[in-house]
Amino acid sequence: MNRVINNPGLVVDDMLKGVLAAYPQLEAAAANPRVIKRTCAPIAGKVGIVTGGGAGHEPAFLGYVGENLVDAVAIGEILSSPTANSFFEAFCAADGGKGIACLYGNYAGDAMNVSMALKMAELAGIRVRTVVANDDVASAPKGKEAERRGVAGELLMLKTASACASLGGSLDDVIAIAQKTIDHTRSIGIGLKPFVIPAVGKANFRIGDGKMSIGVGLRGEPGIRLDDVVSADEMASLMVDAVVTDLPFPPGKRVAVLLTGLGATPLMEQYILYASVTRYLGEAGLTVAVPLIGNFFTSLEMTGVALSVLLLDEELERYMKHPCASIGLKQT
Amino acid sequence: MNRVINNPGLVVDDMLKGVLAAYPQLEAAAANPRVIKRTCAPIAGKVGIVTGGGAGHEPAFLGYVGENLVDAVAIGEILSSPTANSFFEAFCAADGGKGIACLYGNYAGDAMNVSMALKMAELAGIRVRTVVANDDVASAPKGKEAERRGVAGELLMLKTASACASLGGSLDDVIAIAQKTIDHTRSIGIGLKPFVIPAVGKANFRIGDGKMSIGVGLRGEPGIRLDDVVSADEMASLMVDAVVTDLPFPPGKRVAVLLTGLGATPLMEQYILYASVTRYLGEAGLTVAVPLIGNFFTSLEMTGVALSVLLLDEELERYMKHPCASIGLKQT
Repeated sequence: MNRVINNPGLVVDDMLKGVLAAYPQLEAAAANPRVIKRTCAPIAGKVGIVTGGGAGHEPAFLGYVGENLVDAVAIGEILSSPTANSFFEAFCAADGGKGIACLYGNYAGDAMNVSMALKMAELAGIRVRTVVANDDVASAPKGKEAERRGVAGELLMLKTASACASLGGSLDDVIAIAQKTIDHTRSIGIGLKPFVIPAVGKANFRIGDGKMSIGVGLRGEPGIRLDDVVSADEMASLMVDAVVTDLPFPPGKRVAVLLTGLGATPLMEQYILYASVTRYLGEAGLTVAVPLIGNFFTSLEMTGVALSVLLLDEELERYMKHPCASIGLKQT
Repeated sequence: MNRVINNPGLVVDDMLKGVLAAYPQLEAAAANPRVIKRTCAPIAGKVGIVTGGGAGHEPAFLGYVGENLVDAVAIGEILSSPTANSFFEAFCAADGGKGIACLYGNYAGDAMNVSMALKMAELAGIRVRTVVANDDVASAPKGKEAERRGVAGELLMLKTASACASLGGSLDDVIAIAQKTIDHTRSIGIGLKPFVIPAVGKANFRIGDGKMSIGVGLRGEPGIRLDDVVSADEMASLMVDAVVTDLPFPPGKRVAVLLTGLGATPLMEQYILYASVTRYLGEAGLTVAVPLIGNFFTSLEMTGVALSVLLLDEELERYMKHPCASIGLKQT
């Protein structure tokens, strides 16, 4: 096992030690080491932004706790949901008296635990509303959007909603922005080599040599088909096509593009793909106003890429461009 | 070949198309597509900062062209030196009339091409001085520092020298800061799985399963020994030991730490390693004033990590913390 770990069962705890050692602006919630918050949180009079999910997607999610971004994050085991208690304690850590927006991805475990945490919050008198990311076009057909997984597009929702909260938005405003963002975001991934969960020790899914899994999920969920690997340009064509045909993306509009590596795909290859993505979007009449290219949302050391496209309006573009600072995303 | 590329022989050109499509603040030099410069360069009255090297280390080197960072970069083929002409045209692109600091790594090809470019610059009346990074302790024994390779520590030299130039330093000042930085930086890498050069199609070196190559070079140069993989904590111990014993790092001093993944090692594992690195540095009486953790300097999709430690004084710490913005490094 060619890894940089100590105990395969303790990778999340060991990672958090490193994160907390590096950044004094982050701390664990007093009651729960699996909640990481901004040291300055809660911020009185600001809507608190909370997210959470399984570990192994770093820098998602803990890497988006920061200035003008997320206030507190609940952290699960590798690729599995945080506990209800962790979500609840993240609410407490982020509660500045103006309500909490809990923004998370559409997975059964997360939904169940958030649901329990909401009941705990109600008893504690903390007002929480939720938005669920469901941006992955490959995970359910058009018309069944509510069944789709949340993937990298979730970051775009965190970005805009957090900017809205930082600029003084009410809980209703923040929730509306988060919902509008995810409603206008479509994503698709291509997996080229699987990952291995350290505590498992072998891949629990297969992508053969020379094959690509189109529509692969961030937890290794199988894609919609397994094809021979094609060129980056052909990958871009099929990814852009899958995304822009799923929602009206009217010609003349501006978009934000998030192109993330899934872990082991070099940045070089991500830029090779981006060159074609931006060309195909251009052919569809779309202008990229906000490009984000890099390892923003990974699946351990999976080889592959994912594309998310957000249809912007003036408001969303402003929020996307708002300055922020965190491990995973810094903008001036 | 599970890659996101078009033509294996054109990966660098194709990458540059993506980079230029994404960032209007970067452009190719008019005369040479293998020189990327800030759109605003040359900046009159500022010492120009130039670097260069082989591609495949992204975000190094082109990812460090930016605000308060590098003005122009010469880009070679995968893991091979840029041409003399590219170095020369990078000098021209960065020449604001106050001289050029050309900062690069200690490789025979780069040294030869920079040497030729210096002659071209002399004829063109551009004043250029150089500093050569030689931070890799594994590549030659103590006492033979001039034979050592430049590795990730080169980024620290770019950072401080660029800050000095941006704050109005003369060419002498900038060169002195670059030299002081690299003289006080020591690095070591551990490789866990090799990379494959796309145009070659198979790894040209081997690291067996369950093995680690201590002191591996960024171009796959063999390390000083091939051992069984140990825990992250033991890796940290041997890396910190190799680095801090090579230079006086007096207890009570502050250091900058650059912990880079080599391509395919997840950010999670980098933080696991960092937790132990900072602890062992603490045991040596050293305080980490500047932590940089992430994929800053890679070797395609090599699995592994590299550690660079810079002994700070007040001046170097100030330059390390100076704000900057580029693809690979953003600080506010």
